[in-house]
This record gives sequence, structure tokens and C-alpha cells, in this order.
Amino acid sequence: MSRLSGRTYIHDKPPSVISYACVGGKKEGEGPMREYFDKISDDPYFTTESFEKAESEMQKQAILLALRKIGKKPENIDFMLGGDLLNQCVGTSYSSRDMNIPFLGIYGACSTMAEGLLISSLLVSGGVGKNVIASTSSHFCTAERQYRFPLDYGSQRTPTAQWTATAAGAVVIADAGQGPYVKGATIGSIVDLGVTDINDMGAAMAPAACDTIKNFFDDTGKKPEDFDLVVTGDLGLVGSSLLYQLLSNEGYNIKPRHKDCGLMIYDAKRQDMHAGGSGCGCAASMLTGYFLPKIKAGRIKNILFVATGALMSPTVNQQGESIPSVAHAVWISSERS
Amino acid sequence: MSRLSGRTYIHDKPPSVISYACVGGKKEGEGPMREYFDKISDDPYFTTESFEKAESEMQKQAILLALRKIGKKPENIDFMLGGDLLNQCVGTSYSSRDMNIPFLGIYGACSTMAEGLLISSLLVSGGVGKNVIASTSSHFCTAERQYRFPLDYGSQRTPTAQWTATAAGAVVIADAGQGPYVKGATIGSIVDLGVTDINDMGAAMAPAACDTIKNFFDDTGKKPEDFDLVVTGDLGLVGSSLLYQLLSNEGYNIKPRHKDCGLMIYDAKRQDMHAGGSGCGCAASMLTGYFLPKIKAGRIKNILFVATGALMSPTVNQQGESIPSVAHAVWISSERS
Repeated sequence: MSRLSGRTYIHDKPPSVISYACVGGKKEGEGPMREYFDKISDDPYFTTESFEKAESEMQKQAILLALRKIGKKPENIDFMLGGDLLNQCVGTSYSSRDMNIPFLGIYGACSTMAEGLLISSLLVSGGVGKNVIASTSSHFCTAERQYRFPLDYGSQRTPTAQWTATAAGAVVIADAGQGPYVKGATIGSIVDLGVTDINDMGAAMAPAACDTIKNFFDDTGKKPEDFDLVVTGDLGLVGSSLLYQLLSNEGYNIKPRHKDCGLMIYDAKRQDMHAGGSGCGCAASMLTGYFLPKIKAGRIKNILFVATGALMSPTVNQQGESIPSVAHAVWISSERS
Repeated sequence: MSRLSGRTYIHDKPPSVISYACVGGKKEGEGPMREYFDKISDDPYFTTESFEKAESEMQKQAILLALRKIGKKPENIDFMLGGDLLNQCVGTSYSSRDMNIPFLGIYGACSTMAEGLLISSLLVSGGVGKNVIASTSSHFCTAERQYRFPLDYGSQRTPTAQWTATAAGAVVIADAGQGPYVKGATIGSIVDLGVTDINDMGAAMAPAACDTIKNFFDDTGKKPEDFDLVVTGDLGLVGSSLLYQLLSNEGYNIKPRHKDCGLMIYDAKRQDMHAGGSGCGCAASMLTGYFLPKIKAGRIKNILFVATGALMSPTVNQQGESIPSVAHAVWISSERS
């Protein structure tokens, strides 16, 4: 059972994230976060014959790694929630089709890791499921050809463009455990302020992040200072700076304790990443590789994890539509109460 | 709180479906189900300038109609779950972007209505949310050009092909109400028996339907005879006949009490529909237009609503991949206990 205040749910009995794992690609292994990945593959095909199959294989490895770390098997899992950026979320459905785990597909674009964590923790704390997986992935090569141009064109990227991370992350949420604990969550609404530039996703997503973060603080009466970090998914350089402005208009200053996964995963200058990283796998890998282990070790106490997603498709964007976005916030803590 | 037995959850306090609405297109209005739609639009564009925008407009109308019937507004809704067949689920995200309702995107292809009902009822019965919307849609013209060929080609359809319904459905699930009641649900696993023909979705989805229906009956100890009807989403002619065989191998005979929404929505012969209707909107409109009102009126007592979804994408299908499918079952009853 969870308590509602506004759009925020606080768990009476916080579920525990009992395992987590991430897998990354070559460029992610060349970045500053190399050591935090459980596994890096230098082969963009992950031994398969297509990028789409590679993404599924990568996500499958993340799921199986998360299970292996706690000695569990797919049959020990009550159900899983997963999704990704690919049309029809095939990165996820093909990753788990042989596991025989009850499956609930979700779609939140780059907010998927937060959405999966949010729904699974709400269900588990409501008594539905004892061990649940949430997982997601993204792959530079599948995203680039689906959303932008065939890789072979070698098209020029704009300064506001972000680089879709080749990465996957998976967590196991349980009704009992030693933490990290999911203490609460805020469900985000769709926000669309009219941004139409698909090469500037950070700007499209920042208003959604602002809306959700503001709602979380308003609903709980907490302040940014109550958290070690406010972690956004992949706003990048442009979106992060917009977020500071928007939240400051609302009376909240998160800048001193803000981290953006899109700005962490690469060395933007050295790796020529323009505005930073993006993709479902970006926030998922930084959460599972960097933040959760630090929370588990007690080196970070409380984070507000806010992954954002841009909910447009290339088709409607070409029809002149603007980009609606959503952000979900999950409060993760090293302490149960 | 819900009780788990196997993969099935039975609600101690069954949530109530307090409102429902559906909107259909011209062909749906020419079929035998015309009178059951709340609204029929003869304009495939729904007054917009693209088929994608039309689908969003149609789903928006279904959501607003469901709210209007009970005198509620978007601000009375705690959150909504929705998704559709379009790439990045834009039918749904654009339908609700102006409503400011906390939004959780789901992807289950044609199983979306069952998935939305399932997750929302589990959350509501766990104390998360008092009034929740689940909605979905499909549009023949958006699906045809995305999954198959541009409409202008006038391509020949195979005998096993199904016709994607232009239809949308929305329900409001609440923690209290006068029914119909959601008494339980079974979460389906992904099943892939190797079917690769995207013009024979019924065959690809039947094994998933069998798996979930078998699990529901095994888990609950109930028999098909305990239900007035077992309603599948859109297996069509081929899939329905396969389902009878597969379930009969498992010792269950559902044929005398089976209805398939894909076989109901059109007059297959007169309307030249080959194997029947399909699409998220097919099961959603038959549930909200035909079944729920009959259950509400007490003319039907118990149904097991099993919508199925094929989880492939055209891209991976062209790469030679088979079609994984999923089915979720929801037990809906006129009686609370």
C-alpha cells in the first residue's frame, strides 16, 4: 500500500532493489564510466547479425547478469516490465522471449527505466509480485537509423544533438531486501511546450523534468537539500541548463546537486559527443552501474532519479508536430525509513 | 492487495469499471456492431490532416466520452495507462498531451486493452489511485502504411490477413463503484513458436492465448463452464481455430463459449474482411461497446477477456525473425463477490 499526496506515492514498506546490472558498447567503454559497467562489448553486433538483434542480446545479458548476481533464475521472477526506443519495443520483447517470465511491455522512450522502477515498486508494495524485473536498452546504431539517417550517410550532427548510448540496464525489485530502497515516486504528465527540433531533445524534455521534480517537492514538502543528488536521465547540456532556469522560476535550485546521466556517460569533448548522451540505456546504465552500487555501499544516501522521455515519432515530427515529453521521478535511498 | 496463485492475481476488493466508451470509423459503422459504438466517424481523418493525427483525435474522443458519461474531468483522474500500435505509441501520447493526466505508456500491441486493464486494476486494488484510465486505439490507414504497404499501392491481401480496425476504447477503473468488476487477471508470458508470416497474425498469437488461458484456469481451478464467455482480442478465423486445438490438447474446451472480437466487429464475407478484424481498437471497442454494457446490465455475468498482441516489428521481421506474442487475461464480472 502506498500513500498518495498529489501525484506522488510514498511507500509504507519500501521495496528493495536487490540486484542490478548493466552492459555497454565500445564507445561507452572508452568513456569515463568504463569501470562501472558490468560488461563492455567491443562488438556492436554483440555476435548477432543485425543491430536490432544486438540490442536484444545486450538487454538479455543485462537481465541474466542481474539474476545471476543474486543466484536467481527467470522462473523465480513473478513478472517483468520493459521497453525500449525501437519500433514496437522489439529490443525488449526479443530479449526476453525465451525466458518465460510474465511480461508487461511499457513505453516511455528514455524515461523507461524510471517508469519500470516506478510501476514495479508500486505493484510490489501493493502486494503484487515478490521479485520483479525492470529493464531497458538502447543502441546507437538501431536508434540512428530508425530516428535519423542510415549510418552510412555519415550525416553531420548539430551542436544540440545527443548520442544514443549503446547500453542496457536491468534491476530486480523485491518486497524484502537490504536495499537500496525505493521510497516513493511521482508519475509525470505529458508536457509539450512546442519544441519541434528532433536534434534538440534536451530542450523538449526539460519542461517535463521540471514539472515532475516540482510536483515531487511540492507533494512531499521536501527540498533539493534533502537529497544528495537529483539525477536526470539524458537532458544533456542544453536541457540541463534549461531545467535549472525552469526550476528556479518555481523556487527550486537543484544545480549544486544535479547530475545528468547524459553528461556523465561520455567525455563530451574528447569523445565528440556534442550535447551529451541519450537513450533508454543511458539513464539505465548509470543508475544500475554507478548510482545503485554507491547507494548500496552507503556512499550516497538519497537520490531523486528522474528519467525523461520524448514521446514523438519521426512520422508525426515530419507532419510538423511538436515533441511531447514525460518524466517520472523515483526516490531511492540507502535507508528503509 | 491481490492474492497470487501461479501467474494469476485475484482481487480481494475488486475494482470497478465505472465508465467506458468507444469510437469507430466508417467501416466499423457499416458492420454488425454499429449500434454498440458511442460514436462513428465517416471521416477517416477525423477532421485532422493526417491519419496519425486522426488516430490521436479518435482516442482523445473516446477518453473524453468515458469521462463525460460519469461527469468527471481529466483533473479527477489519478493517472492513465495507454498505448497503441504506432511507432513510439504516438496515437496515445498525442491524444492525451493536453489533459495533464499523469501518464504511463504501455506497449502490448493488440493486447494493450487487456494490459491496461490488468495493470490499472492491480494498482487500484493495491491502493494506488482511485480513478484511473486505460485507453488504446488503432487506425486502418496508419497501421497499413506502417506495417505493410502505402494504401495507394492497393496491394492484394492474403486469405489469412486481418483488417486493422479504426477504433478506440477507453475505460475508467475505480476503487469503488457499482461494477462491472475486475475480479482478477493473469499476466501472460511471451510465446514464440516460430511463425514468421506477418500476414497470419492469428496463427502467431494463438499459442500465447492458449498459454495464458490455460494458466488462468490452472491457477484458479475454474473451468470454461464457469464463464459465460471467453473473449479473445483478434485471433480471427485462423487463430481461433488454432486456439481450440491447442487448448483442447491441454484439456480445456472453450469453443461453445468463445467469442473473438476480430470475428465480431465486421461481417467478414459481406465486408470482404478475410480472416477478420484486428488492432488494439478492435478488442478495446468490442469490450467497451458490447461486453461491458451487457455485463453492467446483468445480461452477461462473467467473461474472461483475453487480448493478444504480436510483438514483432517490420524491421526484425524483414531480418527473418519469427513473431513473439503475448496475451493477458482479465476476469470481468457483474458481481463483486
